[in-house]
Amino acid sequence: MPRFALKVEYQGAPFAGWQAQADQPSVQGAIEAALARLDAGFAAGARIAAAGRTDAGVHATGQVAHADLLREWDPFRLAEALNWHLKPAPVAILQAARVDDSFHARFSAIERRYLFRLVARRAPVTHDKGQVWQVLNPLDLDAMRQGAAHLVGHHDFTTFRSSICQAKSPVKSLDEIRIEEIPIPHGREYRFHLRARSFLHNQVRSIVGTLERVGAGSWAPARVAEALAARDRAACGPVCPPQGLYLAGVGYPCNPFA
Amino acid sequence: MPRFALKVEYQGAPFAGWQAQADQPSVQGAIEAALARLDAGFAAGARIAAAGRTDAGVHATGQVAHADLLREWDPFRLAEALNWHLKPAPVAILQAARVDDSFHARFSAIERRYLFRLVARRAPVTHDKGQVWQVLNPLDLDAMRQGAAHLVGHHDFTTFRSSICQAKSPVKSLDEIRIEEIPIPHGREYRFHLRARSFLHNQVRSIVGTLERVGAGSWAPARVAEALAARDRAACGPVCPPQGLYLAGVGYPCNPFA
Repeated sequence: MPRFALKVEYQGAPFAGWQAQADQPSVQGAIEAALARLDAGFAAGARIAAAGRTDAGVHATGQVAHADLLREWDPFRLAEALNWHLKPAPVAILQAARVDDSFHARFSAIERRYLFRLVARRAPVTHDKGQVWQVLNPLDLDAMRQGAAHLVGHHDFTTFRSSICQAKSPVKSLDEIRIEEIPIPHGREYRFHLRARSFLHNQVRSIVGTLERVGAGSWAPARVAEALAARDRAACGPVCPPQGLYLAGVGYPCNPFA
Repeated sequence: MPRFALKVEYQGAPFAGWQAQADQPSVQGAIEAALARLDAGFAAGARIAAAGRTDAGVHATGQVAHADLLREWDPFRLAEALNWHLKPAPVAILQAARVDDSFHARFSAIERRYLFRLVARRAPVTHDKGQVWQVLNPLDLDAMRQGAAHLVGHHDFTTFRSSICQAKSPVKSLDEIRIEEIPIPHGREYRFHLRARSFLHNQVRSIVGTLERVGAGSWAPARVAEALAARDRAACGPVCPPQGLYLAGVGYPCNPFA
């Protein structure tokens, strides 16, 4: 069966997460319903697999999934047809690509990139409501960068993973945390760019929630190193809410969308 | 009575426009309802005035209004109190400032700045749904800039104003049209920045709708000059939809928010 990779963008707010669940709207379910309009295999219950099973409320600008279809499709026409059937859900197929059977959206991935958008200002956000996490007070960018530097590298991230995380090992390499500061009217937006082969459950939200405490002055940057060394979930800062988090991209040894 | 200037940000989608209307939600109505919680004058029907009476669906990042209150307020506390009472409407008071009675949000204004966001890509927009105008095909930035250059200056803009425009004269000075091109995943965003002392009804949407035709190749750039010279509404390109338009700022001889 011809296999297609799909690059997917979505708003997380209307969904109970990526993963299909009975009686709950999911991004996976929306895409599989659109596929079912085109393909008898999906009409009969075939499933797609994705690189990152994002939580409820988490967005994507570069999720990757793959689907096995019964017949050949021109990739451009496949993306167009899926976008047609996805309307009006806030889910878009940015690109489809024909891949061979050895490609697996999840198991072939060698890199995940996440973006977290944090807005610091007094007045409530209006245009980006539901798309950013807002705090009211200004943050110290340098302190957050100092705190973040302690986390980059190969570490036991027990402190920064959810107690329900199912990964076999808490040891991961975090390749990058880059923090941009962008002026917005009467405030500042901080964009956290994180890159790793893979992430633990709630790892990005645990890290950003902790770094916000550093930026607010409640934590000294060195306390991040102590929290990491503690290998104790209780040493983590507050986990921040999902609406600022975006799965921004997935890397493969050979980019299927090139 | 102490007069306060308010810098206001809002999403246009939920409102029938800025101006209060019976039985229709309006931005003015939302702010006056919040003021009525703080001030007996507004509880008794006092009104606010704004620099730009934006149409249904049009957004703002820098609208300016003024309100006369019965007592003195610390401007920061006034903004905070209004934002509290405005929740959950997507309207935010970015700043309040004490001004003297000679300040009038509309009549003292000497400059209005508008932004129009136009996205060109095949896949539907998800995160910016309702915040941009989307077209499916790529646009020619240089051609749009050439077309726009014909419109800058002091002209009779009859072609580019709504037939129901109530301005006394169609002659206006358009000080600037600057067009930025910003890459987005699998597409391009074009940001049109327009600046003038004042604008005619539907002038920005008429201009951007016409320049989109130029960018798409349907109109040669010189046809914009011909359309302007015709001084005939029928010579205008299609008026583009409101959801890409933002009132971005208002200028005064003495900035009340400095």
